[in-house]
Amino acid sequence: MAVTSRSSRAEAHQARRAAVRDLLREAELDALLVTDLRNIRYLTGFTGSNAALLLHTDGDAATVFCTDGRYTTQAAAEVSDLERVLDRASARGLVARAAGAARRYRRTGFESQYVSVEQYAGLQEVCGDVELCRAPGLVERLRTVKDDLEIEALRQACAAADRAFAELVDQGGLRPGRTEREVARELESRMLDHGSEGPSFESIVAAGANSAIPHHRPTDTVLTTGDFVKLDFGATVGGYHSDMTRTVVLGTPADWQVELYDLVREAQAAGLAAALPGTEVAAVDKAARDVIAGAGRGEEFTHGLGHGVGLQIHEAPSLAATGAGTLSAGMAVTVEPGVYLAGRGGVRIEDTLVVREGTPELLTLSTKELVVV
Amino acid sequence: MAVTSRSSRAEAHQARRAAVRDLLREAELDALLVTDLRNIRYLTGFTGSNAALLLHTDGDAATVFCTDGRYTTQAAAEVSDLERVLDRASARGLVARAAGAARRYRRTGFESQYVSVEQYAGLQEVCGDVELCRAPGLVERLRTVKDDLEIEALRQACAAADRAFAELVDQGGLRPGRTEREVARELESRMLDHGSEGPSFESIVAAGANSAIPHHRPTDTVLTTGDFVKLDFGATVGGYHSDMTRTVVLGTPADWQVELYDLVREAQAAGLAAALPGTEVAAVDKAARDVIAGAGRGEEFTHGLGHGVGLQIHEAPSLAATGAGTLSAGMAVTVEPGVYLAGRGGVRIEDTLVVREGTPELLTLSTKELVVV
Repeated sequence: MAVTSRSSRAEAHQARRAAVRDLLREAELDALLVTDLRNIRYLTGFTGSNAALLLHTDGDAATVFCTDGRYTTQAAAEVSDLERVLDRASARGLVARAAGAARRYRRTGFESQYVSVEQYAGLQEVCGDVELCRAPGLVERLRTVKDDLEIEALRQACAAADRAFAELVDQGGLRPGRTEREVARELESRMLDHGSEGPSFESIVAAGANSAIPHHRPTDTVLTTGDFVKLDFGATVGGYHSDMTRTVVLGTPADWQVELYDLVREAQAAGLAAALPGTEVAAVDKAARDVIAGAGRGEEFTHGLGHGVGLQIHEAPSLAATGAGTLSAGMAVTVEPGVYLAGRGGVRIEDTLVVREGTPELLTLSTKELVVV
Repeated sequence: MAVTSRSSRAEAHQARRAAVRDLLREAELDALLVTDLRNIRYLTGFTGSNAALLLHTDGDAATVFCTDGRYTTQAAAEVSDLERVLDRASARGLVARAAGAARRYRRTGFESQYVSVEQYAGLQEVCGDVELCRAPGLVERLRTVKDDLEIEALRQACAAADRAFAELVDQGGLRPGRTEREVARELESRMLDHGSEGPSFESIVAAGANSAIPHHRPTDTVLTTGDFVKLDFGATVGGYHSDMTRTVVLGTPADWQVELYDLVREAQAAGLAAALPGTEVAAVDKAARDVIAGAGRGEEFTHGLGHGVGLQIHEAPSLAATGAGTLSAGMAVTVEPGVYLAGRGGVRIEDTLVVREGTPELLTLSTKELVVV
């Protein structure tokens, strides 16, 4: 991994917290109780399994991080720049603390998209004069646009997947007689060799007719000459997920396979070309979908065009016909059209990219020529 | 995997649903909206990523399963014995449906330990005259006692871990010069060879002083002669998790290592002997803890004795000093005392077992003699 100094990481976390404060002021909140571990990682760098953050609008000096005794040492290293307290019931502990200074926490937001009805009831027991306000998705909104540290992590995750795929193809990993499961395992193992912390989701390896199932799970189905093999997989680096799909043919491709592949490739190129700052997400979806619909295959492209990707494999924005909003420079998204012919086979081609002025920056760089193995 | 007929699986799911109905009648509920995917899997066998179940107290004929269009075929195969409807917003769809027959769903429970404040607000928008009642943990209560199908899955998961560990030791996988990370990866790979669907949690391999960190993550630390190496890992089969810890010594053990190992082993044996139906969970913890405290090491046993295990790696009951309730025959739990000497090394020994009359049935069978490699 590229060396990133601790100070530049700390600066990134500080900048992210400052951006949350702008949103809190807009929402007239005094503080935000952050309980989602991915959001906590984004705002502090903490990677443990129990934490809460009470982010005060006044600044970092008024902001408190809480974890439990298992993470004393780790929290001191990862969250050295914030006040730290220990409490096994971390969210509850921080709310009780706010209640003790309720004048400064009059309106405190919480992540109502994650906090369960039972947890909320527990927080209400200790909140005293603090008003707990539903504040869903504030940090997620910021997370759609990635900063340089995040893009570097995504770049490394995508590179691990690219390298694993290249080795798999070059070293004969895709050959008749192997099972989907064996191929998935080799891919995942090779990604680990290249720095992945683990697969970013359950890898899809789908051979023959299985390639027509959009989210097929690898089975003991054997790869056979003449098959499409669809591979959808990713690596994680620093908690960031890559996502890529390639579809190859074993042996000489039939005419229908070449035709189908070219169609999806053309649609994917149209989607990439449309993924520009200021474009409505629905228009990006439409750009690719129109190509497929124009060939009379619209019904066989059964899912959205893509999604945001970062600390989660699926995050905002959704690039779909029903999606709302526009793209911004720095968003990391996938573009992944597919056409699925039930019982015969399907093709999907997917890249992870960063939205940029002019032309998107592709992070997945594996060839999109039809690979024949 | 042992062959289990579809009909015996269907019967198990029916029996589980019938047991939920007894709890619903006790709670004076007409129905339960089940949204947790593990609980849905437990009650129906469905393994997809989007579903809800509206389990009516009147019986299966009045019970409805909901998923989305991606899972039409899979749901027909896995949930063939219930009415199935399709709706992307599965929970909301089922509540809207109940609202259309509100007299039969007057008091409908929901899993308030999982349903978020936002989701709940969405359900309230469509619930009409249906009263949505907080009903946390009903299915989880049943899940503590495993039926034969569940125990068979746990047995296979434990066997995969046992075999992987035996091969690792026998084939020289634990040798000076390897890193913790390499060992973890080999263990996980070998568990896959033996039928694991994936590691049941992030494997712990902790060498030397790292073995004194209860939840150490594998690093590039190199195994060295004289080290304790603590390995805590598990496999999953059919969604069920195994959990086992063994601690070995590289080379001739020092006196303090033998002494520490024997102490933990004695404590573990005491915990196993106490894990009988009718025993308070706190008393099981105490049985093991007293052995360690008696040797003056009570402060260095810093966690609870064990936990329930099944569709989740950690589930009820908690075998801890602060735990409530008693053990019942058929519960699957871990017994895992540990003593950690900061800066020197630690020992933990853990089995997964089923509580039985007379003596527990161990599912993890790897030797607990001090393994010297």
